[in-house]
Amino acid sequence: MDAKTPSESRTTLTDLVLPSETNPLNNLFGGELLARMDRAASIAARRHSRRIVVTASVNHVAFNKAIPLGSVVTVEAAVSRAFNSSMEIFIDVWVEDRESGRRSKANEAIYTFVAVDETGVPVQIPPLTPESELEKDRFDAALRRKQLSLVLAGKMKPADATELKALFKD
Amino acid sequence: MDAKTPSESRTTLTDLVLPSETNPLNNLFGGELLARMDRAASIAARRHSRRIVVTASVNHVAFNKAIPLGSVVTVEAAVSRAFNSSMEIFIDVWVEDRESGRRSKANEAIYTFVAVDETGVPVQIPPLTPESELEKDRFDAALRRKQLSLVLAGKMKPADATELKALFKD
Amino acid sequence: MDAKTPSESRTTLTDLVLPSETNPLNNLFGGELLARMDRAASIAARRHSRRIVVTASVNHVAFNKAIPLGSVVTVEAAVSRAFNSSMEIFIDVWVEDRESGRRSKANEAIYTFVAVDETGVPVQIPPLTPESELEKDRFDAALRRKQLSLVLAGKMKPADATELKALFKD
Amino acid sequence: MDAKTPSESRTTLTDLVLPSETNPLNNLFGGELLARMDRAASIAARRHSRRIVVTASVNHVAFNKAIPLGSVVTVEAAVSRAFNSSMEIFIDVWVEDRESGRRSKANEAIYTFVAVDETGVPVQIPPLTPESELEKDRFDAALRRKQLSLVLAGKMKPADATELKALFKD
Amino acid sequence: MDAKTPSESRTTLTDLVLPSETNPLNNLFGGELLARMDRAASIAARRHSRRIVVTASVNHVAFNKAIPLGSVVTVEAAVSRAFNSSMEIFIDVWVEDRESGRRSKANEAIYTFVAVDETGVPVQIPPLTPESELEKDRFDAALRRKQLSLVLAGKMKPADATELKALFKD
Amino acid sequence: MDAKTPSESRTTLTDLVLPSETNPLNNLFGGELLARMDRAASIAARRHSRRIVVTASVNHVAFNKAIPLGSVVTVEAAVSRAFNSSMEIFIDVWVEDRESGRRSKANEAIYTFVAVDETGVPVQIPPLTPESELEKDRFDAALRRKQLSLVLAGKMKPADATELKALFKD
Repeated sequence: MDAKTPSESRTTLTDLVLPSETNPLNNLFGGELLARMDRAASIAARRHSRRIVVTASVNHVAFNKAIPLGSVVTVEAAVSRAFNSSMEIFIDVWVEDRESGRRSKANEAIYTFVAVDETGVPVQIPPLTPESELEKDRFDAALRRKQLSLVLAGKMKPADATELKALFKD
Repeated sequence: MDAKTPSESRTTLTDLVLPSETNPLNNLFGGELLARMDRAASIAARRHSRRIVVTASVNHVAFNKAIPLGSVVTVEAAVSRAFNSSMEIFIDVWVEDRESGRRSKANEAIYTFVAVDETGVPVQIPPLTPESELEKDRFDAALRRKQLSLVLAGKMKPADATELKALFKD
Repeated sequence: MDAKTPSESRTTLTDLVLPSETNPLNNLFGGELLARMDRAASIAARRHSRRIVVTASVNHVAFNKAIPLGSVVTVEAAVSRAFNSSMEIFIDVWVEDRESGRRSKANEAIYTFVAVDETGVPVQIPPLTPESELEKDRFDAALRRKQLSLVLAGKMKPADATELKALFKD
Repeated sequence: MDAKTPSESRTTLTDLVLPSETNPLNNLFGGELLARMDRAASIAARRHSRRIVVTASVNHVAFNKAIPLGSVVTVEAAVSRAFNSSMEIFIDVWVEDRESGRRSKANEAIYTFVAVDETGVPVQIPPLTPESELEKDRFDAALRRKQLSLVLAGKMKPADATELKALFKD
Repeated sequence: MDAKTPSESRTTLTDLVLPSETNPLNNLFGGELLARMDRAASIAARRHSRRIVVTASVNHVAFNKAIPLGSVVTVEAAVSRAFNSSMEIFIDVWVEDRESGRRSKANEAIYTFVAVDETGVPVQIPPLTPESELEKDRFDAALRRKQLSLVLAGKMKPADATELKALFKD
Repeated sequence: MDAKTPSESRTTLTDLVLPSETNPLNNLFGGELLARMDRAASIAARRHSRRIVVTASVNHVAFNKAIPLGSVVTVEAAVSRAFNSSMEIFIDVWVEDRESGRRSKANEAIYTFVAVDETGVPVQIPPLTPESELEKDRFDAALRRKQLSLVLAGKMKPADATELKALFKD
């Protein structure tokens, strides 16, 4: 299979924050943002693999910035690394101020999807070739994240997570 | 403030999986499950703190088990540890088989919420006293998770994460 | 078929009241509460019968207490009596005050469900054995309610509704 | 206040049955129909009273006829009797067969609404003058239903429910 | 096939404007009104043809009047002219003022639907016979609109649009 | 006010077609597409004007291509011409085939929005400077469309619509 670039899977979902999605402070519910990111990420994974895709995991997500009712929110998702049948999707979330037009970063998130056939069995997917510096950084970091994920799931011994151990040595 | 137990915040959300929430394999979207877990966790956080609460972060979540259309899904959330103004919420997700009546574990997830006043400023919350063995295990692990979260966010040096370093030593 | 207890079908649905579900006084629409109760009751009926279940009727429901926007509402449903293929489900609705943590009764309702096979034909279901005093009271009252329902539907002569006639004699 | 006729409040809500509203047999959920009827009835009550209205109660509702996915459902609501500040609304539900064009009765229901001011306090409403034979029958029956409702709520002694006692005498 | 009248397809959809459907000025989104009109029009088209129907086009729609949150909106749709397999549907939208009970015209719109069989192939439909003056005017205008539509789609030369040319001559 | 380019307002909304949005042929409802286009167009209008915007009109829309359940649909909206306080928004809709990855044009539509202040009064907006050939064509055509719209609304005599008359001369 021919390698693809992150641009080929990049997916943009720009939409408003509606009253039914906000908490008592009139900000977007964290759970609603997680659901929007999942929809955008699933489309990116599908564009890369041209297969049915299912969410395998979500990495740690921090909600640093409240997103008020009536905001315009842009969710941008692209494949950051492809493994055998799984893909890591990196998601950037931006919020725009209506009056100044300035847009600021609201969140980042990393989802993993698996490509499957009609019966749900994982299938081989094309590799990914990062192009920009940012894409290369995310590509490299994806391996460390995969190791951490395996360690946390008890499927890899911490001592074998070479990339990760380097981080925690004095 | 008097300490509370996990039972005092335990929240159960049992509901059906509807067609508008499923992917092409007729299983619940990962993003929809994340949103349901956020709603249940926010109620648990509110019951513990009696304050307005906002999602601060979601730990790594793995989706190991597909949840088919028409399933009965039970999301159970309870505070697992309280810090100054933030709380860790541990969430268990169960799926029931209609014919056998057997229920099996579908997912676990860990969300962090912050209690705030009407203007969004963090406020002090009561401590948590775990009771059962499971609650005590989750209470202890919460500290390690908080350290990992601080390390990943660049707010704590890996070398200072005492609990965590122990995990990665040979 | 072995008898079951109400606990085996007890279903809890705790959730928030969102802006899209409220009337001009910012209270939950009666119709939305009826729909939530139907979902919880259908799960209780399904847990008792392990069958597909369909709503057969709803008894008189009074809405005595307004449920404001942002409330935490708990709908608790359990089978109160089983007949041949139909079940009476008793539903209690509680609302919590965020600041005091006090929960108060908002509503009661009684739905009847029928268990059916894949073609919609009614099927035999297990009997119910009530345990607590409250469960026994509701079990006894269920028979009177069934008679009233048959009378109102014109399927039983008022004079034959023995349990009911006792109520209306001077 | 001048009396009004049922025609002045008659409200028609014709809409499709969508996939997100159906149970595993692909029929409309009972709870969804109850919610639609509440919306139509609230509009009828508002048209009669020109006030904010809130659902006070729902009489016994029987679901005799399944309403399949894709059906066209017509909910027709009109005030059947006005009391001091409360109104009884009679609702007829029709389903149409696409190919023959024939429409058949699927359900009847009776809701009671109360008219209130902006602070939620009940206010006086205009009386109702029935016109057709059907409207007159429903107007008369409304009084018996109100008595039954008061008896069931423990607010009237069965022996005082004159209209109702007549029904149960041998 | 026997001709039908507009009354035989007339469809009324009366419903409230909910918070999740309004813009920052608390008025109904134009897009939501377009969606409601499509649902009402599709039912009218189906009633005339007794077939599956799909939206073929929407004529120019002007939104002259804001429809505030909490309004009662009535969408009335009826077939205004039938061609071979397509139908023009004329839609009138009314808004009611709660306190005065006065209803005023908020919008008009014209949708075209095509009747198809189960495989999506267009099928013959009955002709329409207008009755009232308004229905006759709309019936006549429908031909001019069809010509304009064909011209704009490049399927008819402007010079051949006889009805239309008359409009633009000095 | 400084002129802006179409790129500065370009808005992309990529999302899936869900079961609750499809008709009996399992294709996206025309009305749902109209609502999605309205949301994307309103964001484009807001980006150009940095004001609250309301839908003023929708030009003729033809639905030439069915969009099946599960499709990935991309709605792209950008301002095509700015007048005093109103803007024309041109919208392109694309559908992707999952297996081939090919995307094809499904629809075009043209909406007009008006920028208003907090009280709903129209306000001055920046002019638009088209850049690409396609943007220039759409900019020119926008004037003819505005004339047609004024003629159809009875606000301009057909004989005065200079641009338009040219189209209909022999």
